[in-house]
Amino acid sequence: MDMIEIIAKKRDGHELTGEQIRYFVRGFTDGSIPDYQASALLMAIYLNGLTDEETYCLSDEMLHSGELMDLSGIEGQKVDKHSTGGVGDKITLITGPIAAACGVKVAKMSGRGLAYTGGTIDKLEAIPGFRTSLTTEEFFKQVNEIGLAVVSQTLDVAPADKKIYALRDVTATVGNRSLIASSIMSKKLASGADAIVLDVKCGSGALMKTEEEAADLAEIMMKIGNHAGKRMTAVISDMNQPLGNAVGNTLEVIEAIEVLRGRGPADITQLATELAAHMVHAGGVEPTIESARERARNALADGSALEKMREMIRYQGGDERVLEDYSIMPGSTLSVDVVAPREGYIVAINTQAVGQASQHAGAGRLSKTDVLDMGAGIHVHKKIGDHVSAGDVLMTIVGNDAAKLQAGLKYGLSAYVIGDASPWSPSLIHRIMTK
Amino acid sequence: MDMIEIIAKKRDGHELTGEQIRYFVRGFTDGSIPDYQASALLMAIYLNGLTDEETYCLSDEMLHSGELMDLSGIEGQKVDKHSTGGVGDKITLITGPIAAACGVKVAKMSGRGLAYTGGTIDKLEAIPGFRTSLTTEEFFKQVNEIGLAVVSQTLDVAPADKKIYALRDVTATVGNRSLIASSIMSKKLASGADAIVLDVKCGSGALMKTEEEAADLAEIMMKIGNHAGKRMTAVISDMNQPLGNAVGNTLEVIEAIEVLRGRGPADITQLATELAAHMVHAGGVEPTIESARERARNALADGSALEKMREMIRYQGGDERVLEDYSIMPGSTLSVDVVAPREGYIVAINTQAVGQASQHAGAGRLSKTDVLDMGAGIHVHKKIGDHVSAGDVLMTIVGNDAAKLQAGLKYGLSAYVIGDASPWSPSLIHRIMTK
Repeated sequence: MDMIEIIAKKRDGHELTGEQIRYFVRGFTDGSIPDYQASALLMAIYLNGLTDEETYCLSDEMLHSGELMDLSGIEGQKVDKHSTGGVGDKITLITGPIAAACGVKVAKMSGRGLAYTGGTIDKLEAIPGFRTSLTTEEFFKQVNEIGLAVVSQTLDVAPADKKIYALRDVTATVGNRSLIASSIMSKKLASGADAIVLDVKCGSGALMKTEEEAADLAEIMMKIGNHAGKRMTAVISDMNQPLGNAVGNTLEVIEAIEVLRGRGPADITQLATELAAHMVHAGGVEPTIESARERARNALADGSALEKMREMIRYQGGDERVLEDYSIMPGSTLSVDVVAPREGYIVAINTQAVGQASQHAGAGRLSKTDVLDMGAGIHVHKKIGDHVSAGDVLMTIVGNDAAKLQAGLKYGLSAYVIGDASPWSPSLIHRIMTK
Repeated sequence: MDMIEIIAKKRDGHELTGEQIRYFVRGFTDGSIPDYQASALLMAIYLNGLTDEETYCLSDEMLHSGELMDLSGIEGQKVDKHSTGGVGDKITLITGPIAAACGVKVAKMSGRGLAYTGGTIDKLEAIPGFRTSLTTEEFFKQVNEIGLAVVSQTLDVAPADKKIYALRDVTATVGNRSLIASSIMSKKLASGADAIVLDVKCGSGALMKTEEEAADLAEIMMKIGNHAGKRMTAVISDMNQPLGNAVGNTLEVIEAIEVLRGRGPADITQLATELAAHMVHAGGVEPTIESARERARNALADGSALEKMREMIRYQGGDERVLEDYSIMPGSTLSVDVVAPREGYIVAINTQAVGQASQHAGAGRLSKTDVLDMGAGIHVHKKIGDHVSAGDVLMTIVGNDAAKLQAGLKYGLSAYVIGDASPWSPSLIHRIMTK
């Protein structure tokens, strides 16, 4: 087979065969196809698109380039959840306990982050003693006994995707629907769950800016999942402002616990409950989404979700006193406020700027080797539609390094847009899609 | 400046600034921009195109990446000619002597070839003793005295183009109008002529398949030339069959001399005279193209073009007896005929296959280090529209290596298409464009 022919075919808008996609993925992964040919093909794909068949094939090849998790040692229906990512997104820390409390098996492998905060694994490590590395035996035993474990990804999942993504990142070929979908799904399918619930974000703080774009992405991700024999649900949710009021590692763990206690912010409570309900429904525990929603709400109300969180912390060696005493987690010694320069309504939030403020304040890594400041982050005091007077505090940046706080402040100062009229407030859940 | 931003801009169909194009050309040439980013940009350019302004800028940057020829040491109007290349194209060996005999200064730098035959420089070396390497002093002196010299390119012309072309060649990004035009013109503008006549081919043996494509390419090449202050003419000519009846090195020199003697094939005589007339007109020797045509025809008829060829051979150390005795050039000892399998009309010739037959028979290089068989090549006996009987010889492949002849024959056997009805015969000169 000839790589130049493959590039020319896609360049001219034709459909590649499964064999041609396989040749590309394998050849690029093993180094026999050079970067410069791969990037030419990726740009041709970016501009001319991939058909569904091509996208299935690309996902499948990337999936099988690496190790797969075999969850057959866990009884019952295993359900996974994936979020396309945003600012203040501590959803996994809430949906996991709710879904497990309802009887679904949640065997979750998560990552660390190179983003606005650490990843789920980093956040959990804010809890003293919490072990995120379990043996497969411990992992299976825990999920079989309590229905829930969140561990760090140790498998070599989809190395082809890692290599292709790294090239896309430096050749302006990230933002293509099929490439994004196959990248996410090749990793997600490796986790071995029976059903997958996708939380696809849209808005100023997300890669997809509009509901339509997000729905398009969800559609092809669900098709890839179906094609691999998985039940798929997608919730299109809003990311025009941070989710909840906390951004950071310790701060997000605290907010997640507050939600589990039934006293968290309304938006994150609503979205987490909705996603958990879809996990419960997809896991076959409840026959309808309505009864699944009822059950998820009850798990919050009766404290069983909070108790599930406690069990997980205990099983994974963490200090369960954290549920009553947040001060045992790393905190912050410094803070700086961003105040309203004028009276008016919050008409928009540059969500990305809030994320960057958090990241630069120390909550996120700027490079792979950075050590996180677990206590750093953002308290978001005002959201879209709120009325403010001049001098009101919009957000507070906290941390332990004055220089980093100043760096974060630079972003924070441009995060809020204040106008004269009360704005349209974005609804949180735009659309629910099932396949 | 940020290369990823530049790629994204062109990916999204926007116009790059001069500064951005300069950043790319210089960075890629000096190695600071990696291949994989360059190829992503080239694919985006291939698919989204370049504006005229972008194309001027790209040509200009590639031109100034290398050395430029200063022809101010030569008196009078210097006119250059460029052909986009084809099979049997020995035009330079004919137009040069005609134009010079009419009083134009032809200071031509040519190359060697990695194609169906050698380049003009290789062909000239079929003449015993002919020196293609002259000092600049010798070169200027010869052109000042006799109006004509053809030497091999010794300058480091447009190294940026060399590097970019090499990458385009392996990433399926060759066939874009703006990239082709800027590549050709960046090299052509380095030659220092006052006016340039382009011979742009279209048809089965050319990169541009249709007259429209060729005219589009000519249009942008002429614009680039005008933008650099050059008078430009383009002749769109047919390459649906080999030009003349000879393909090869010695064989093409012989055919060129035959044309200069007034007894060459009609097609090549017509095209060479037309191109020479445009050189004569562009060089200001004749006020109208009609009078220039008259003058060019006379230079053939009165033998002055042949005498100009003799002078050039003598000045450059060649054995001028070649004009009367072709046997002093390298010949061939072997030949094989391609015969008509049936009666009918030649309705099409796969011109590329004829070229490949010549190349594989030894007339062209398959890799840079191949040594040419100067005597190898093709005698084309039948052209489009000719009637043939079964067993008639269509073409003869000649050379000195039986294995190579067999390799050439493989291509030769598929070169002719014979049909029942007398076909439409392509006209030789499709269009003339001046700017």
